Amino acid sequence: MITDLVTQTSSNETEPYRPQLTHSGLAPTHPVSVVDEQRVDREVQIAGESPLTLYVDDREIVTLMTLGSHPEALALGYLRTQHFIERIEDIRSVQVSWDTESARVSTWRGVEGWDDKLKRRTLTTGCGQGTVFSCTLDSLYSVRLPKASIAQSTLYVLLENIRRQNDVYKRAGAVHGCGLCRGEDILLFVEDVGRHNAADAIAGYMWLEQIPGADKIFYTTGRLTSEIVMKVAQMGIPVLVSRSGVTHMGLELAQELGVTMISRAKGRHFLVFNGSECVLFDAKPEDAPRHKGTGIMHSRIPD
Amino acid sequence: MITDLVTQTSSNETEPYRPQLTHSGLAPTHPVSVVDEQRVDREVQIAGESPLTLYVDDREIVTLMTLGSHPEALALGYLRTQHFIERIEDIRSVQVSWDTESARVSTWRGVEGWDDKLKRRTLTTGCGQGTVFSCTLDSLYSVRLPKASIAQSTLYVLLENIRRQNDVYKRAGAVHGCGLCRGEDILLFVEDVGRHNAADAIAGYMWLEQIPGADKIFYTTGRLTSEIVMKVAQMGIPVLVSRSGVTHMGLELAQELGVTMISRAKGRHFLVFNGSECVLFDAKPEDAPRHKGTGIMHSRIPD
Repeated sequence: MITDLVTQTSSNETEPYRPQLTHSGLAPTHPVSVVDEQRVDREVQIAGESPLTLYVDDREIVTLMTLGSHPEALALGYLRTQHFIERIEDIRSVQVSWDTESARVSTWRGVEGWDDKLKRRTLTTGCGQGTVFSCTLDSLYSVRLPKASIAQSTLYVLLENIRRQNDVYKRAGAVHGCGLCRGEDILLFVEDVGRHNAADAIAGYMWLEQIPGADKIFYTTGRLTSEIVMKVAQMGIPVLVSRSGVTHMGLELAQELGVTMISRAKGRHFLVFNGSECVLFDAKPEDAPRHKGTGIMHSRIPD
Repeated sequence: MITDLVTQTSSNETEPYRPQLTHSGLAPTHPVSVVDEQRVDREVQIAGESPLTLYVDDREIVTLMTLGSHPEALALGYLRTQHFIERIEDIRSVQVSWDTESARVSTWRGVEGWDDKLKRRTLTTGCGQGTVFSCTLDSLYSVRLPKASIAQSTLYVLLENIRRQNDVYKRAGAVHGCGLCRGEDILLFVEDVGRHNAADAIAGYMWLEQIPGADKIFYTTGRLTSEIVMKVAQMGIPVLVSRSGVTHMGLELAQELGVTMISRAKGRHFLVFNGSECVLFDAKPEDAPRHKGTGIMHSRIPD
């Protein structure tokens, strides 16, 4: 019933439905004074970290600690990946205010099964760094990821393009970056103090813009834990690339779900942990685009 | 009443009270086959990541994703830092079984105010990467940290000693390490897939062994976010050292609570973000102990 009503009021043949949104990105870094090992006063930039309390129809859901660059997409993505709300068309508006440190989501018709949803969440609190786990596993196994291949030559250009992102990281460190990519192109790059927030913001953006995952690559500076593999599979993205390592459970999930998993991807190096049959080895590592300076990046890895 | 009874049954003048514990540490790494950028098959080690569901008196509390090296201390530390149980003497036993992926804590007399505690947790789920936030802030501001100084010469030797730890990290990456230190000595070093778990395991160990925090240093490979500063302050530790960066809110909390905060501490380099008056600049950076190879570590930073 809800579906029909919403479709009636908001459906449009050419443009995806879009809730009313604020655009309340925060300044991501702050200058602070420090004393270095020479006892010299210096000014450095540090990453912002602000609480953002999420309300749905005036009901408090969660407080997220975030860099705050994409708060509306983060709120949407959180609701999507936690399965609080299944259809973007059910959302009327997202209003972020940093004065009150709140993201207020209002729906057209309320959310069905509130108490069940809050209870499920309670049972899994803290798991996988704050993400619902067991209750999403069932729905995950219904995910069917398309087979998608990635060429080594494309990966090398993509890694070169990504090297130019990570703005906050370069200035202040202490953040992770996630990128939604198609081939060598980066459609959206989000940095946040938690990699789960950056991933959720990308999920929210995809939801809002009705972007399919099948032809995309998800890049992250962070480790490939079970949590991140789950989120990426939920987005329907078949290829996952990370600058960092993998955990055992992250790998097992990737194997079960058929996610192509490429890790330790930096400069010309990478390791394929799952789905090597989907990787087209069409470039020699030494033919990859040259970085300025050393070929292999020794820059700080987000922590 | 509970206090009196427990003191009666378990108090001992010379040894701290100790619940019955299993000792169920898991093998931390697993060999897996990968394909590298040369299309060569290789075997690498990856970090374990196992779910561990925590029950208190048969009531399910949370599922933690952990490397599993110190599961009993992790369970205890989680209950302590989340303020589920305030006194170690109230705990009868901690039984970890990897067959059932469970940590079963039983108390002598039950836990008071269950429903309140579970509800508070619900309101803050996911915040600061899975940690209760707002409900611990009130109790935090009653924390009075002692003034403690740290000498640059001690810090350099400590950093050199820590370089020899991080076993799992060196083999597999994808984990964070936290160390409980006194001067240049490392009393306990715990690695885990989440830095909050490693910190909780140290909190649990301190609780179990009745170790005071006042003369300790807390080291972490991870970022200094608000969450970590809170945990360390809860442990009563006045000096926090990190190999990584800080966030704005982590710094603000350190300032409010009087935590000496030293960040980007690697080799001979460090930045004092708070409490530089507590740092004794008694060593020249160039006099620090020499590492083999380059003076400054270019090794991978945990991600």
